[in-house]
Amino acid sequence: MSQAAKTLDGWYCLHDFRTMDWTTWKMLPSEERDAAIQEYLGLVDKWNRTEKEEQGSHVIYSIVGQKADFMMMILRPTMEELNEIENEFNKTKLAEFTIPVHSYVSVVELSNYLSSDEDPYQNPQIRARLYPILPKSKYICFYPMDKRRQGNDNWYMLPMEERMNLMRSHGMIGRQYAGLVKQIITGSVGFDDYEWGVTLFSDDVLQFKKLVYEMRFDEVSARYGEFGSFFVGNHLQDDQIQTFLHVK
Amino acid sequence: MSQAAKTLDGWYCLHDFRTMDWTTWKMLPSEERDAAIQEYLGLVDKWNRTEKEEQGSHVIYSIVGQKADFMMMILRPTMEELNEIENEFNKTKLAEFTIPVHSYVSVVELSNYLSSDEDPYQNPQIRARLYPILPKSKYICFYPMDKRRQGNDNWYMLPMEERMNLMRSHGMIGRQYAGLVKQIITGSVGFDDYEWGVTLFSDDVLQFKKLVYEMRFDEVSARYGEFGSFFVGNHLQDDQIQTFLHVK
Amino acid sequence: MSQAAKTLDGWYCLHDFRTMDWTTWKMLPSEERDAAIQEYLGLVDKWNRTEKEEQGSHVIYSIVGQKADFMMMILRPTMEELNEIENEFNKTKLAEFTIPVHSYVSVVELSNYLSSDEDPYQNPQIRARLYPILPKSKYICFYPMDKRRQGNDNWYMLPMEERMNLMRSHGMIGRQYAGLVKQIITGSVGFDDYEWGVTLFSDDVLQFKKLVYEMRFDEVSARYGEFGSFFVGNHLQDDQIQTFLHVK
Amino acid sequence: MSQAAKTLDGWYCLHDFRTMDWTTWKMLPSEERDAAIQEYLGLVDKWNRTEKEEQGSHVIYSIVGQKADFMMMILRPTMEELNEIENEFNKTKLAEFTIPVHSYVSVVELSNYLSSDEDPYQNPQIRARLYPILPKSKYICFYPMDKRRQGNDNWYMLPMEERMNLMRSHGMIGRQYAGLVKQIITGSVGFDDYEWGVTLFSDDVLQFKKLVYEMRFDEVSARYGEFGSFFVGNHLQDDQIQTFLHVK
Amino acid sequence: MSQAAKTLDGWYCLHDFRTMDWTTWKMLPSEERDAAIQEYLGLVDKWNRTEKEEQGSHVIYSIVGQKADFMMMILRPTMEELNEIENEFNKTKLAEFTIPVHSYVSVVELSNYLSSDEDPYQNPQIRARLYPILPKSKYICFYPMDKRRQGNDNWYMLPMEERMNLMRSHGMIGRQYAGLVKQIITGSVGFDDYEWGVTLFSDDVLQFKKLVYEMRFDEVSARYGEFGSFFVGNHLQDDQIQTFLHVK
Repeated sequence: MSQAAKTLDGWYCLHDFRTMDWTTWKMLPSEERDAAIQEYLGLVDKWNRTEKEEQGSHVIYSIVGQKADFMMMILRPTMEELNEIENEFNKTKLAEFTIPVHSYVSVVELSNYLSSDEDPYQNPQIRARLYPILPKSKYICFYPMDKRRQGNDNWYMLPMEERMNLMRSHGMIGRQYAGLVKQIITGSVGFDDYEWGVTLFSDDVLQFKKLVYEMRFDEVSARYGEFGSFFVGNHLQDDQIQTFLHVK
Repeated sequence: MSQAAKTLDGWYCLHDFRTMDWTTWKMLPSEERDAAIQEYLGLVDKWNRTEKEEQGSHVIYSIVGQKADFMMMILRPTMEELNEIENEFNKTKLAEFTIPVHSYVSVVELSNYLSSDEDPYQNPQIRARLYPILPKSKYICFYPMDKRRQGNDNWYMLPMEERMNLMRSHGMIGRQYAGLVKQIITGSVGFDDYEWGVTLFSDDVLQFKKLVYEMRFDEVSARYGEFGSFFVGNHLQDDQIQTFLHVK
Repeated sequence: MSQAAKTLDGWYCLHDFRTMDWTTWKMLPSEERDAAIQEYLGLVDKWNRTEKEEQGSHVIYSIVGQKADFMMMILRPTMEELNEIENEFNKTKLAEFTIPVHSYVSVVELSNYLSSDEDPYQNPQIRARLYPILPKSKYICFYPMDKRRQGNDNWYMLPMEERMNLMRSHGMIGRQYAGLVKQIITGSVGFDDYEWGVTLFSDDVLQFKKLVYEMRFDEVSARYGEFGSFFVGNHLQDDQIQTFLHVK
Repeated sequence: MSQAAKTLDGWYCLHDFRTMDWTTWKMLPSEERDAAIQEYLGLVDKWNRTEKEEQGSHVIYSIVGQKADFMMMILRPTMEELNEIENEFNKTKLAEFTIPVHSYVSVVELSNYLSSDEDPYQNPQIRARLYPILPKSKYICFYPMDKRRQGNDNWYMLPMEERMNLMRSHGMIGRQYAGLVKQIITGSVGFDDYEWGVTLFSDDVLQFKKLVYEMRFDEVSARYGEFGSFFVGNHLQDDQIQTFLHVK
Repeated sequence: MSQAAKTLDGWYCLHDFRTMDWTTWKMLPSEERDAAIQEYLGLVDKWNRTEKEEQGSHVIYSIVGQKADFMMMILRPTMEELNEIENEFNKTKLAEFTIPVHSYVSVVELSNYLSSDEDPYQNPQIRARLYPILPKSKYICFYPMDKRRQGNDNWYMLPMEERMNLMRSHGMIGRQYAGLVKQIITGSVGFDDYEWGVTLFSDDVLQFKKLVYEMRFDEVSARYGEFGSFFVGNHLQDDQIQTFLHVK
C-alpha cells in the first residue's frame, strides 16, 4: 500500500517576485510611465473580474527588504492560465522596468483528507479551501519548505501513523492562530524546488513570527522541517499601486 | 566483478532552457522580429524532418515561472550533432534575444537489462526505447537526480542484489502511472553535474506531483534520492511558437 | 504547553547594504552629484528628527571590504514605515548610483522574559531596550544566525530548562563585555532567512573578534550556532557622508 | 612520519572555459571578425610551436551545453607562463567577445610513486607522463574532485596502507579502460578549490560515462569521492576553429 | 574559565581581488590609460612610503585563472585606514575598469601565546610578527578557513589541552617548511565569513601544494578543517604593473 497520504488539489498557484529598475523607470517620460501604469492596472482589473467570477484569485504585496520590490500571487484552474498571465505580464511596458527575482509554482493542496462516501470535490467547505478567494490582509509571509530526509531524521521513512500523529499536534499550534493568521498550503512536488509553499496572511505582522517560531519547537519542524527563503510584505491595494510606482 | 549494472545507451540528449529578453525583443522592428521567427521556425522544420526520418527527436515547451521562458529537448545519435544544433541556434537572430539559463547533457539509458543471447540493440522494443520519438504531451516535467552517498545512506555501497530489489519496488510505482505518465531516463554520469535526468510527459499535469510524491516514500527516493531543480512546462506546438513570441 | 520562550518585540528593523557604482557616479556633472547628496542628507535629516522625537532610530556605517560600501540600519514602529523609507530611498537620485547587495528584515527582540504582574511594555527599562536609540559608536558588526537542528545537535528538541541554562551561561560571556560592546538582538523568524540578527556596536573594533571568538567555545554557539555572513564597518557621521561620496 | 604519499609533479595546467557573446560578435564588421580570428589562430600557432618543441602542450574543445562554448587546456613548465598566456589571450580582440565562465589551476601529478635509487625525474617513462603531449582525441571530459572528510568517511584519517589498498583496486578499474580512455590527473591542493582535476580523453564519448559510473561503485569513490561540475566536449581542430567562430 | 586561547592582534588586513574589464580598458584612449596607470602607481608609491615608515605593508600579485586578475593585500594599524585605502582606490580612474570579485577583512593574529611577566606587545620579536613587512616572494597563496563544528568533529567542544596538543603537532609540519614558505595567519572572527585567513609566500609555488597537502593528513585539518576558495598568484613588482596593464 502506498505510504503517501492522499491529497486534494485545487487551483494552480504562481508566486512571482519582481524588483523595480527605478533608474530606467525614472528615465521614462512621465506620459509613458502613466501609460505603463494604466496598462498594468488594466491587467489587474481583468484579474479582478476573474476573481469576481470565482475563476481564480490574486493579491499584490510590496516586499520589505532587497529580496524583491513587489510580489504577485496568482491562482488559476490550469497551468496554462498561469503561464499565459506570466507571458502577458512579461510583454507589458511595466515589465520592461522589472527584474524577475524569484518565483514559485505550486497547487493549492489539502492533505490528511479522511475519505468518505461523498466526492470531496463536491463538498462546499472543501471547495472553498481548494479554490480560495485570497484574503486582502495587511501583511503576507511566504516561504517554501521540505520535509527532511537526513540520517535518522527522515520523514519519508516514518510509518504513516507516526506522520499523522506528528502532523496532528503540528496542526494544533496552527489552530491557536485561527482568526489571527490565515494559512494557504500549496504543494509543489514535481513543480518546483521545494515540496510545499506556505503563504500566511495577517493584519498583525508579528503573528507570523510568533506562529513560525512556536512551530519550530514542534517535532515536525524541529526534526523534519527544511526551510527556504522567507519573504514578508505589505498589501498593495489597487489604488496604492499608483503611489508605489510614482516617481518625480 | 563490477558492481555497476550494465546499461544500454541510446540517443544523446540536450535539455536547453532559455529566458526571453522581452525588452530588447520588443525594440526590434516588427519585420526583423518576423524574420527572426521565420528563421527559427525553419530550424524547427529541419528538426521535424530529422524526426520524421527517425534520426533524432525533439520537443519545445513553455516553462512556468521565472526559471525559464522555454525549453528545447533534443535527441540525436551523436554528441557532435547536439553541439552543432546548439551552435546553430546560438547563431540565429532569435538567440540574440534569449538568455541561456540552464542546460543538461545526457544520453537515453535503459538499466536493469537482463542479458540474453540476442543483441539487445537489434531488439525492436528496446530500440524504440533507446531511440524514442518524444511524445507531444500537453505537459513536461524535468529534474536531475543523484543516488545519495552519505553516512549510512550510501547507495553505491549496497550489494547489487539489494539495489535491484529496491529498484524493482520503485519501478512498481512507476508502472501504476503507465498510460498517464511517460518517463524518459537519461544518464549523465561523466557528462553533467547529476547522475541522471528524468523527463516526464503527461496530458494531466497533476500526475507529475502524484507520481513524484508517491515515489518519495519509497526507500530508493526516501533514503537514496538527491534531487536538483524541478521544471514544469506547457507544450508549444509549432503553430504556438509564433503566438508565444508575438509582441505588440 | 508551548516550548517556545515568550519574547517581547519592539521596533521593526531594516539593515540595508549598498555598493556605490563609482563609475557612473563620477560621470554625473558635479552640480547633479551635489544635488543628489543634498537630497540624501535631507532624507537623513528627516530620520534625525524622527529619532529626536523617539519615533525610531537609525545609523549609517561605511562597510570594510567588497561586500558593501555602506549600510543603513533603520528602526521604526511598523513594517509599513520600513517599507516606505526603503521605497523613498530607492526613488532618490543617489539610489541610481547604488547597487543593493544585502538586506535584513527583523524586529528588536527581548527573550527569556520572566513574567510578573506588571505589563512589561510599560516598564521604562524594558521600553528603552525595545525602542532603543542606536549608539553612534565608531564600529559596527552585523551577522545573522540560526540555532542548529542537525542530528544530535538540535536546539529545538532540547527541553526548555536545558535551553535556559545554556543561554544563561552564554549571557555571562556577553556581560563581560558590558561597557565595551553594545549588542542589539533582532528576531527574524518568519521575516527573513535566518532566525536572528545580531548587531554589535563598539569604539574598539577588536572587541567584536574577542567577543564572538570567546562565545564560539560556549556550547550554545559551539554545538548550536549557525552563522551567516559577517559585516564590519566604520561609523559615517552626517558630516562624513559628503566626504565619503566626494569624487573629483 | 608524514601520512601524505609522495607525489611527482610535472607541468602546470590551466583549464580555461569561455562562453561566446554571439550577439556582439555578430555586430562586428566581418573584416574585424576575420582579423580577430586570425589573431587568435596566430596565438594557437605559437602554442603549436611550443608543443612541437616539447615545452608545453594544449588542446581546444567545444563544450556541449550552456556551461561554456569552448575550453582551452594548457600545460606549461611554470605558473608564470600560464599567467602570461591567460593575460595574452585576455588582451586579444576575440577575448572581448568571450565571457570567462570557469577555470581550474593545477599541476600534472603522479602519485603512489614507489621510490628507488634512480631519480624519477630522469626516467623517460615517468617524464612522458609528467610532461605529456595531450592527445587530440575526439572527446574530452573534465571534472574536479576532493577526497571526503565527513564523519566516518574521512579519507585523510585512514592509515596509509588502507588508502594504498583502496587506490590499488580503484586503479584496476581504470586499467580496464586502457586504450579506450586516456586519463590525466592534475593536483590542485593549494592552487584551486578542489584537490584534484581529472581530464579524460577518448574517441568514444560513452566510455566516459561507463568509466566514471563503474568507478562510483568502488569504495574510493562511493565513500570518499566528492565531485564538482562535469564538462564534456568535442575536439576543435585548428581548421575547425574558424567554422566554430563563423557567423553570417 | 574561558575556553578561548588568548590571541595577540596586530595590523588590520584587507585582501582585495579584482578582475580587469579589458574590453572597456582597451577602448580608453592610450593617454587616458597612461594617466590612469600613473595615478595608480602614485597610490602604490604612497603605500611604499607607508611601508618604509613601518606604518603598514602591502603586496600586489597577479592571480592565475579566472577567479581574479590581480590581488592587493594591505596591512594597516586601523580599520579606518583600510576603509580609506579601499575608498581611495575605488575612486581612481583604474578602478572604473576593475570588477571587485572577492575581498577578505581580518587582523594579523598570533595564538597559543604563553603569557609571562613582560608585555608581549613590547617584545621586538613578537612585534615583528604582529606588524610584519610582507615578503615580496615570487608566489602567493591565499585561502580562508574555519574550524569544523559538526557532529563528533566539533573543534570548539574539545578541551583546551587537546586543542593545544593537536595544534602543536600541526605546527610541526609548518616548521618543516621554514625558509621555504612564509605563513601569515590573520583572524577574521566577527570581521568576515570564515574564522581565519591564511596567506602563504614562497619562491617555489610547488611548496604551497606540498605544505597544504601534508597538513591535510594532520588531524587538525583532516577532522577539523573547513576550507574556502584557494587563490594562487605571481608577484607583480611595481615595474611589472605597467606591463600587466599594457594593451595595444
